[in-house]
Amino acid sequence: MTNAPKPAHADELAKQQRSISVAEFFEKNKHLLGFDSPTRGIVTTVKEAIDNSLDACEEAGFLPDIYLGIFRMNGDIFKVVVEDNGPGIVPENIPFVFGKLLYGSRFHQIRQSRGQQGIGISAAVLYAQLTSGRPTLVISRCGSDRAAFQFRIQIKTEQNEPEILEQKETSWDRIHGTRIEIEFKSSLTAKKRLVEYLRYTSVVNPHARIRVELDGEAILFDRASNEPIIPPQAILPHPHGVELGELKRIAAGSKEPLSSFLVNNFSRVGLKTAGEMIQTAGLKPELVARKLNAENLASLQAAMQQVKVPPPPANQCLSPIGEGLIKQGLEKEFEFDFCSARSRPAAVYHGHPFIIEAALGYGGKLEAEGNARIMRFANRVPLMFQQGACTITGCISGINWRTYGISQSGLPTGPVLILVHVASTNVPFTSESKDAIASIPEIEREITLALQDLGRDLKTFLSRRDRSRLSEERARAICAIIPDIAAKVAETIEKPVPDISPIEGQIMRRLVAKKRTENGMVTVSVQNYTPHALDLTLYIITTDTIGTSRPPPFFTEEIGEERSGVWQVNLPAGEGWQVTYPGLGAGIIDIRGIDEKKKVVVDLDHT
Amino acid sequence: MTNAPKPAHADELAKQQRSISVAEFFEKNKHLLGFDSPTRGIVTTVKEAIDNSLDACEEAGFLPDIYLGIFRMNGDIFKVVVEDNGPGIVPENIPFVFGKLLYGSRFHQIRQSRGQQGIGISAAVLYAQLTSGRPTLVISRCGSDRAAFQFRIQIKTEQNEPEILEQKETSWDRIHGTRIEIEFKSSLTAKKRLVEYLRYTSVVNPHARIRVELDGEAILFDRASNEPIIPPQAILPHPHGVELGELKRIAAGSKEPLSSFLVNNFSRVGLKTAGEMIQTAGLKPELVARKLNAENLASLQAAMQQVKVPPPPANQCLSPIGEGLIKQGLEKEFEFDFCSARSRPAAVYHGHPFIIEAALGYGGKLEAEGNARIMRFANRVPLMFQQGACTITGCISGINWRTYGISQSGLPTGPVLILVHVASTNVPFTSESKDAIASIPEIEREITLALQDLGRDLKTFLSRRDRSRLSEERARAICAIIPDIAAKVAETIEKPVPDISPIEGQIMRRLVAKKRTENGMVTVSVQNYTPHALDLTLYIITTDTIGTSRPPPFFTEEIGEERSGVWQVNLPAGEGWQVTYPGLGAGIIDIRGIDEKKKVVVDLDHT
Repeated sequence: MTNAPKPAHADELAKQQRSISVAEFFEKNKHLLGFDSPTRGIVTTVKEAIDNSLDACEEAGFLPDIYLGIFRMNGDIFKVVVEDNGPGIVPENIPFVFGKLLYGSRFHQIRQSRGQQGIGISAAVLYAQLTSGRPTLVISRCGSDRAAFQFRIQIKTEQNEPEILEQKETSWDRIHGTRIEIEFKSSLTAKKRLVEYLRYTSVVNPHARIRVELDGEAILFDRASNEPIIPPQAILPHPHGVELGELKRIAAGSKEPLSSFLVNNFSRVGLKTAGEMIQTAGLKPELVARKLNAENLASLQAAMQQVKVPPPPANQCLSPIGEGLIKQGLEKEFEFDFCSARSRPAAVYHGHPFIIEAALGYGGKLEAEGNARIMRFANRVPLMFQQGACTITGCISGINWRTYGISQSGLPTGPVLILVHVASTNVPFTSESKDAIASIPEIEREITLALQDLGRDLKTFLSRRDRSRLSEERARAICAIIPDIAAKVAETIEKPVPDISPIEGQIMRRLVAKKRTENGMVTVSVQNYTPHALDLTLYIITTDTIGTSRPPPFFTEEIGEERSGVWQVNLPAGEGWQVTYPGLGAGIIDIRGIDEKKKVVVDLDHT
Repeated sequence: MTNAPKPAHADELAKQQRSISVAEFFEKNKHLLGFDSPTRGIVTTVKEAIDNSLDACEEAGFLPDIYLGIFRMNGDIFKVVVEDNGPGIVPENIPFVFGKLLYGSRFHQIRQSRGQQGIGISAAVLYAQLTSGRPTLVISRCGSDRAAFQFRIQIKTEQNEPEILEQKETSWDRIHGTRIEIEFKSSLTAKKRLVEYLRYTSVVNPHARIRVELDGEAILFDRASNEPIIPPQAILPHPHGVELGELKRIAAGSKEPLSSFLVNNFSRVGLKTAGEMIQTAGLKPELVARKLNAENLASLQAAMQQVKVPPPPANQCLSPIGEGLIKQGLEKEFEFDFCSARSRPAAVYHGHPFIIEAALGYGGKLEAEGNARIMRFANRVPLMFQQGACTITGCISGINWRTYGISQSGLPTGPVLILVHVASTNVPFTSESKDAIASIPEIEREITLALQDLGRDLKTFLSRRDRSRLSEERARAICAIIPDIAAKVAETIEKPVPDISPIEGQIMRRLVAKKRTENGMVTVSVQNYTPHALDLTLYIITTDTIGTSRPPPFFTEEIGEERSGVWQVNLPAGEGWQVTYPGLGAGIIDIRGIDEKKKVVVDLDHT
């Protein structure tokens, strides 16, 4: 054997080298986009289409009204129809939106949205033409003064460009919206998963109505709220997340002097901060951005990381669901014995703002045995696959749930539901199929804090329930023998049997606090069923506006996004008291200040 | 609130819609390619560069001789240099190979290779320019009659096109090969992982020499074999894996009549099979492929799935490592008490052929406590991250190891090493970072069968070891008191002390079989240390060519890729016997037919 080069070899190789279109790439690697199998393909297609509809409606400020139809055609070919009342797509762009991968409006915008890459729906079109050989039908209309257009589209795989097989004006009874009909090889083996996806979507999108016609069965997921979501606004990149290459590119396009360049191109940078950065970098403020050389850029980038800058304006670019709506959605479904939710304050990783929301439910309709039910969401989209590979699952397993009175074997077990929602301008998924969130220390920290906080709430509930169960059992045992004792004593001392009901009441003594939410008003009422007058302190901690409550609180305090209000109440025996304020009923109530010696049982009811 | 459309909205959206380049996409989603963090970035960069070098050398039939240098530059900038003796890249293609994502020679070829997508190394160039702002240096030369060329390249992210900053002829002392120098922000926190990657690479590429200069330290991973790998050959697509869309595309480019179209464009289809397909589809054989209409194509595709076709020619397009080389590589490193390896017969998923190889090591230098050590490989590349998300790990956890005498808590525990290699024309990774293999039932089945088989080997070893330990301990105890007894007896009967050594030998009786491999020749020798003549049957099961052994076997049989040979040997007390044949020493030896009553201890030594 000789190691001498075969001179022709590099030339032979050269002939084989060529450019691969992104459509070819994803056709070959379709499992990366969630098209592993026909069974899974249908869930992915429905998910991509509904994500797009929800995003479009939200951006336009409409309450989403979505129709989903799934029909078995001949053999193993299924047709999926999704129709929305969104703003529509102008006809010139339709072929690209559906017939070209990596085409979209949200990729360069820094704000929360379901779809970002412009891959999802065109991947479904690609999967359809690959498995059924059929083009996708799209109808869209942009308003009452515009015509509706109908297209038949497929993708030229080698070029990743749309191929228009039909394009015509059509009549359509929708004034604005988009309809897509897509046919591919599939099966309904994953029907349960599909319905679960729709139910979960409805939980975190209470403003959406989704009508479903699924292989002959009709299901309605109606809206639970009539408030359209305030669409998140795009923000500028944050200086702490900017890499050198990115800075170089932004600077190359700017004729401004350094200080206005920094102020106009980055989030949270004012003139003062800009000046500090320029000074730290050792540059002159009048330098024009695009004239910076490699060395200047490197020192400016380093300075941008060093100078303190407030975190990105998360409230503007993110759209968390809110504790109240999460609880409302879950309780409708599961009728828990206990439920608590948390929205954490906004945090940042690699310059991307994010908010973690979590909820913990206990009892109710949940199964008493087996692993906890885990509901994972990213930007209001349920994550249906690869639970094991997701950092949310990792964080849940990493917590010592026994501390909070829950049994555990890896995951917590028993009648427990855990919901985690990651809202971010850039959710770090482990793959394009967007099934699982990658392990990012900043995100893991926030998830863990939220869950520990909820664990503490549950522990309080469980120990209170145990305590009150115990004293109730004792009281019941006593009440059961009182009539006998009274009769026996009366017989012995030859008097009539006394009325024992006040004694019973005294033994079963209770102070009951209830919270009710109706028509946007929250009422917290307290009833003293005990025989004593009680001096108590009522605490309400909530994101609702308790400042305007009637009666007004004795004292309020802001803790991050939440406010805590305090009322002092003197409540004679047998009497009641209440406070009302506008809001959604999020947060918790607590009663303190009652003399321990009186052994008053406090019932807190958050329904 | 009104739901009337804002007529301008669709137009506003339209303005924001635009095409996203694949470079922009992966710059934003760099974690998908294994560039999550500077720490990990260095492992990914080294891996991509070395994968390319190994692939290039293999294709040209050279024994790889690779140099890797890692140098700390100023601050947190590191320079990675990789130089190989591959066939080189012609200068016209260099900018595209390194400066354009999705450009390569292996994407459309159906055969085993490390790199496939043409993404890896250009992603490293992209990561370099993003974090350090510096272009990548490439030098390449295609033979003694060609000049060497030097380039400085970066990527125009918005277009995914190369930008050539420098291009010139240069002098280079290599006759053929490629050198790349790439600078990016990193750290050496993952140094241990990096060395592990190189060691594992060396285990499954025993034909490669890798010289390393790592931050001032020199390490040599020398080659263990001087046989270059026979490069796998590309095959045609298999009819059972063809989707309708793909068939449509292939047919559109063919002017042939149906039967020759099928024979010339698909693997394993002869005229007879083609005829059967055409008949099943109800078509006429003289129909020209590109004139097939949608309906014809659908019925042809269905027929192609129905008609029986032999599996794809795996031996031609795959390059498994081989049981012998796997064991050799592992034993060099770990000095096991026991090691066994299996190459499974080729199998198929979705029309892609694959071969599973696995090895199980026990004892030696392995840690006695904790989880088993798992080594995962795909197409001879070690998988270093996301062990938990990989189907290999899932299969290992799914086996009941206690059956084979190994303790288990999820993963098996104790001094155990498990190696699994998936070789395929299309390895189904869970993401482009190529860290973990997706869950595919056909692949899982093969992995499980291989591991169960190895588990049985280990069980035999463990129970034999326990049995032989027991009888050895007994024999030792007897031998220890024999001199005293002999002396005492001699004293009593007043005779001289007898020579007790033949008795000792009889008590410690042994039949020892050994296997040695040297210079491509395997010698299996059997030595009878017992006091009896023994009639025994020797079995050798191996992929080596035992047909040509001396002495020739009494009987041989083919079992898939393996052959089993049988020798009958009559061995007088104290004598030895041996057989030699050419090969690598893979497979197992076994001795049977010895009368159980003689209680002969058989030592099988596979070293």
